[in-house]
Amino acid sequence: MSGAVLFAVTGMEGEGWADALRALDPARPVRVWPDVGAPEEIAYACAWKPPAGALKGLAGLRAIFSIGAGVDALVGDPALPAEVPLVRAVDPDLSTRMSEYVVLNVLAHHRRLPRALADQKAHRWIQHDQPAAPAVRVGILGLGELGTDAARKLAVMGFQVAGWSRSPREVEGIACFAGAEGLAPFLARTDILVVLLPLTPATRGIVDTALLRGLARDGALGGPVLINAGRGGLQNEADLLAALTDGTQLAASLDVFETEPLPGDSPFWDLPNVLVTPHMAADIDPAAFARHVLGQIRRLEAGAPLQHVVNRAAGY
Amino acid sequence: MSGAVLFAVTGMEGEGWADALRALDPARPVRVWPDVGAPEEIAYACAWKPPAGALKGLAGLRAIFSIGAGVDALVGDPALPAEVPLVRAVDPDLSTRMSEYVVLNVLAHHRRLPRALADQKAHRWIQHDQPAAPAVRVGILGLGELGTDAARKLAVMGFQVAGWSRSPREVEGIACFAGAEGLAPFLARTDILVVLLPLTPATRGIVDTALLRGLARDGALGGPVLINAGRGGLQNEADLLAALTDGTQLAASLDVFETEPLPGDSPFWDLPNVLVTPHMAADIDPAAFARHVLGQIRRLEAGAPLQHVVNRAAGY
Repeated sequence: MSGAVLFAVTGMEGEGWADALRALDPARPVRVWPDVGAPEEIAYACAWKPPAGALKGLAGLRAIFSIGAGVDALVGDPALPAEVPLVRAVDPDLSTRMSEYVVLNVLAHHRRLPRALADQKAHRWIQHDQPAAPAVRVGILGLGELGTDAARKLAVMGFQVAGWSRSPREVEGIACFAGAEGLAPFLARTDILVVLLPLTPATRGIVDTALLRGLARDGALGGPVLINAGRGGLQNEADLLAALTDGTQLAASLDVFETEPLPGDSPFWDLPNVLVTPHMAADIDPAAFARHVLGQIRRLEAGAPLQHVVNRAAGY
Repeated sequence: MSGAVLFAVTGMEGEGWADALRALDPARPVRVWPDVGAPEEIAYACAWKPPAGALKGLAGLRAIFSIGAGVDALVGDPALPAEVPLVRAVDPDLSTRMSEYVVLNVLAHHRRLPRALADQKAHRWIQHDQPAAPAVRVGILGLGELGTDAARKLAVMGFQVAGWSRSPREVEGIACFAGAEGLAPFLARTDILVVLLPLTPATRGIVDTALLRGLARDGALGGPVLINAGRGGLQNEADLLAALTDGTQLAASLDVFETEPLPGDSPFWDLPNVLVTPHMAADIDPAAFARHVLGQIRRLEAGAPLQHVVNRAAGY
């Protein structure tokens, strides 16, 4: 018998996600909390901010699938069964979408989009000089699945690309830095910093005055640019606001914030050098998520190990 | 003896271009019109809107190098010696810059940048649904050096990419259409049209109501998008303005216009669905141009044929 899948979500429609999974595997029972059916039949859970206790008492639970690449909310949930493997969402669809956002925003600042928009608004035709991509150094802070895909695509565009990760990695064509001792030299060679770190106790607030001051100041763009598509909790917003207004920081693209939705009176909305988006860099598509979940379930039911299992002690 | 190079330009500083060439080949005499020196020493000319008659009476002239990929102004110049080969500018720097502009603008419309900017201005946090790149079809009208580079980079981003050229071409991973009979099916499968054609008598005004109505209307973006980084003369601006305001056309990025600079009272400046830039998609860098010119001169002086020679009858 195929184990049943339970969707336990808040803040999104569970039925749409369940339907996408049913479409790919019509024989498998799929339930949406609170309609759990017989709890002993639930072998898999797909979770996004699960209702408190929704995953308790499921004796047959074999895996929990995070709906999304970031698992900080799930790792921090004390009601999550500690002994069941937690799997992050990894799918080409998710990587494609995140790289769209990253490449769009790197190119936008590289080609001075905020200035072009201001010129257009003022009906000003001014041809500014500007460097080509090979003169600009992009750094990806967080060289996981998403960061690696974005790094490769930025390299194709011609940028000098480096990446930083906690433990050493190798990616062809990308200068790789790692560990605490690798951070300062990584920042010092970076004109455009793309933050794609997981949010953990070790990374909370990492984007602060010290980090921003460590970025290259001799670059072809005239000042460093920050792009945060990771988590709002990674940035110290008081420090960031100061850097964006006192000239430390040339510009930024911010998709995530300490408080979401970003409050209407936040000063970030009105900064002329900041592009604000509503945490939409990379939402996974229900069909892509269903493909990922069923792929992992098939592995497990064939006796193969799960992939992309979260290290809960490390927090990602 | 090395043949001398003459820069004959208007609307730009000739000395900067000449200096870039001198830096790479200090032994070669480089002159800037009107300081031609001994006319019989001039073997090569680099031209951008050359002063009338500047290239007449140069008996030793072996090649004319266009400063820029578009040669419509030079081909249309009756004072240009007809028997001397005219060479278009081809350089990785130029391709890199054009592809930056193209990929930036394709991604901007794909990710609904105009809507995101309006939301930011209004302090609105709205997460809109949106397709991923593989659901969107980009078409490159003009699959030359620049179009092919842009097509390849868009394919790396995940888009479905096709190209159209006058004579048949083959590019791996790109659906290639050609000739008059290939245009309608090419347009019918295109959600985002990127215009990179040369301006010739055959292409003048090609972007008109009929062409715009031929684009796909069943696409994932909800309407077709136009990106013109070729020449302003390619677009019928009355037709385009109508299409952008009556809903035929969802949005556009326009880098070129019939009249440049775009007059301050042009309605294009204020359309909320149009990104206007001042003909800056791909300006060649003086160092890159010097590299290209010296590479071709070395070929010629070694007895090899010139590359990238313009077919003046075809106009490109």
